[in-house]
Amino acid sequence: MFKAIVSADTLRTTIDSVSVLVDECKIHLEEDGLSIKAVDPANVGMVDLELAAEAFESYEADGGVIGVNLDRLDSIAGMANADQLVEMELDEETRKLHIQIDGLEYTLALIDPDSIRQEPDIPDLDLPANVVIEGADIDRAVTAADMVSDHIALGVDEGDELFYVDAEGDTDDVHLELTREDLIDLTAGPAHSLFSLDYLKDMNKAIPNDGEVSVELGEEFPVKLHFETAEGLGEVSYMLAPRIQSD
Amino acid sequence: MFKAIVSADTLRTTIDSVSVLVDECKIHLEEDGLSIKAVDPANVGMVDLELAAEAFESYEADGGVIGVNLDRLDSIAGMANADQLVEMELDEETRKLHIQIDGLEYTLALIDPDSIRQEPDIPDLDLPANVVIEGADIDRAVTAADMVSDHIALGVDEGDELFYVDAEGDTDDVHLELTREDLIDLTAGPAHSLFSLDYLKDMNKAIPNDGEVSVELGEEFPVKLHFETAEGLGEVSYMLAPRIQSD
Amino acid sequence: MFKAIVSADTLRTTIDSVSVLVDECKIHLEEDGLSIKAVDPANVGMVDLELAAEAFESYEADGGVIGVNLDRLDSIAGMANADQLVEMELDEETRKLHIQIDGLEYTLALIDPDSIRQEPDIPDLDLPANVVIEGADIDRAVTAADMVSDHIALGVDEGDELFYVDAEGDTDDVHLELTREDLIDLTAGPAHSLFSLDYLKDMNKAIPNDGEVSVELGEEFPVKLHFETAEGLGEVSYMLAPRIQSD
Repeated sequence: MFKAIVSADTLRTTIDSVSVLVDECKIHLEEDGLSIKAVDPANVGMVDLELAAEAFESYEADGGVIGVNLDRLDSIAGMANADQLVEMELDEETRKLHIQIDGLEYTLALIDPDSIRQEPDIPDLDLPANVVIEGADIDRAVTAADMVSDHIALGVDEGDELFYVDAEGDTDDVHLELTREDLIDLTAGPAHSLFSLDYLKDMNKAIPNDGEVSVELGEEFPVKLHFETAEGLGEVSYMLAPRIQSD
Repeated sequence: MFKAIVSADTLRTTIDSVSVLVDECKIHLEEDGLSIKAVDPANVGMVDLELAAEAFESYEADGGVIGVNLDRLDSIAGMANADQLVEMELDEETRKLHIQIDGLEYTLALIDPDSIRQEPDIPDLDLPANVVIEGADIDRAVTAADMVSDHIALGVDEGDELFYVDAEGDTDDVHLELTREDLIDLTAGPAHSLFSLDYLKDMNKAIPNDGEVSVELGEEFPVKLHFETAEGLGEVSYMLAPRIQSD
Repeated sequence: MFKAIVSADTLRTTIDSVSVLVDECKIHLEEDGLSIKAVDPANVGMVDLELAAEAFESYEADGGVIGVNLDRLDSIAGMANADQLVEMELDEETRKLHIQIDGLEYTLALIDPDSIRQEPDIPDLDLPANVVIEGADIDRAVTAADMVSDHIALGVDEGDELFYVDAEGDTDDVHLELTREDLIDLTAGPAHSLFSLDYLKDMNKAIPNDGEVSVELGEEFPVKLHFETAEGLGEVSYMLAPRIQSD
């Protein structure tokens, strides 16, 4: 059983933060909210999302799991204005999701959850460095790095107490340093890892420019990006595996 | 003889409502205004447009017919701001239309009207159901239907007194019901027909979102869409032939 | 030695007025400002640009020459908001340009100036007619001419004291006349020349719509377009060779 009403804006933000990594996913409809775990086909990027029942106008669920095509759900939510409400109700028998937006009814065929790639075990890493940064600064770093290279190094300089971003291209380089003053918070520790820019660009699309992002880092370890959505009632964590340093 | 001055906005609206169906058309330059009848190459969609002399800043004509390439006329009108005036004068000898926009003179070669597809006889159907609806609701229904299918059913439920739109796709369905309260007006009658969405999408482009549209319907009959332009001084009727029901 | 700070807006305007003609250029870093001369590969269009030291927030140079890829410099400047400052400093040893925008550092590899096409000798023509016109009118004329033809005639009618633009297509024609009243200034003289529209369209992209442009013309002679940038602290001259009249 699942029956919920949510603002189109909240629904879209939720879908987008998962659809940057995968086309379809399982959604766990828990009593206290919904949760999604997914990993991309190459096993490089993972997402772990939770949206509390309080983020909805109304929410009723009893622990089922549905399989959803995210593109299609995004298009449906896209027909509503940001502040319009989207009503969803699961038909258990037909395995279809009935979606209503201001009188318009969309019947979405669900996907058999067993046919969807298995959900990842997201490792509980205890990373030595933690940076809290504005989303806009991540956007700036990723956009600049993309001009010169297809990978990007993130690191922390323990001595100078700063977070840095490095991208080295064939001819040009990009470098950004953010000191404790430029950051919202900094826990210095040994950290330097190289990542694929393609994944970070995708994750960046889902990161709100005006929100804060917690970035956990280590030496040649995955990076963990964490931010809130839906005015704090939703939480998204990305984990991105490092690339092996080429030099 | 033809000499007229009209706002760029009115000219563009007029052209667009015909150019969604055909690339070129005959324009009848009557004493009391201009009129256009056209049918698409597949004989599925027809348009019947009238624009009264009063919709122009000034208008003089004596009953001639010109053949016009609508794309080109649209591009010319597109160079003006919405509230700028477009002056047109026919040179009978050279069969060219002289168009002036704030000092800029464009000489448009006309097309021999005899080389343009014959104008349709638009049948005078007496359809049993009539729905008056906001343009924005047609836009919503067509956009949603397009997500699941390439055809769309329009109908009236006489018992429940409502207008409905149905689109059935291979996996997903879209359904919209508008009751007497949601509509501007409703004359119930037996009505259900299936239409090609491609045509309706094109016609929808020309329908003003904030205007009202009269929709006449029957059982497996053409649909007639009627709306006003140019603050009531222009009238556009579309007629769209039904598709044979596949099931 | 070169070290300068400039608004992103001024930097972009400067780059764009050269990049419409060439992909890379030499920049002369004089004590009193920078200057660029370039000619397109076909030797048809030339640009001569000067930007005074006063157009910069701060400026220090001693007469060097650098070779720059304009596309890349434009992308870098494009990362800043219009009113953000761009800091540039030349590393003489590595021949790289260090560019800083709000903490973000971009290292741009320069091009060996000797590998860049030679700078043109811009002829000092004494053309008989001079028209001072609003940039918006050039835009209008070029846009309209482009609808019918790939070349455009510019001329002055000495008797009627007007500047005219003519474009003759296979079927349609465009004609614009601007009298002394429509112009900012007019020095009449014998002038009529035909030009490639492609070049004029590119130059038009760099001409500010709300600025004034001086147009010098002769009979079958190049046209010289001159306008100011950076609130009068920058000057751009284009010279465009005429096409041989086809009729």
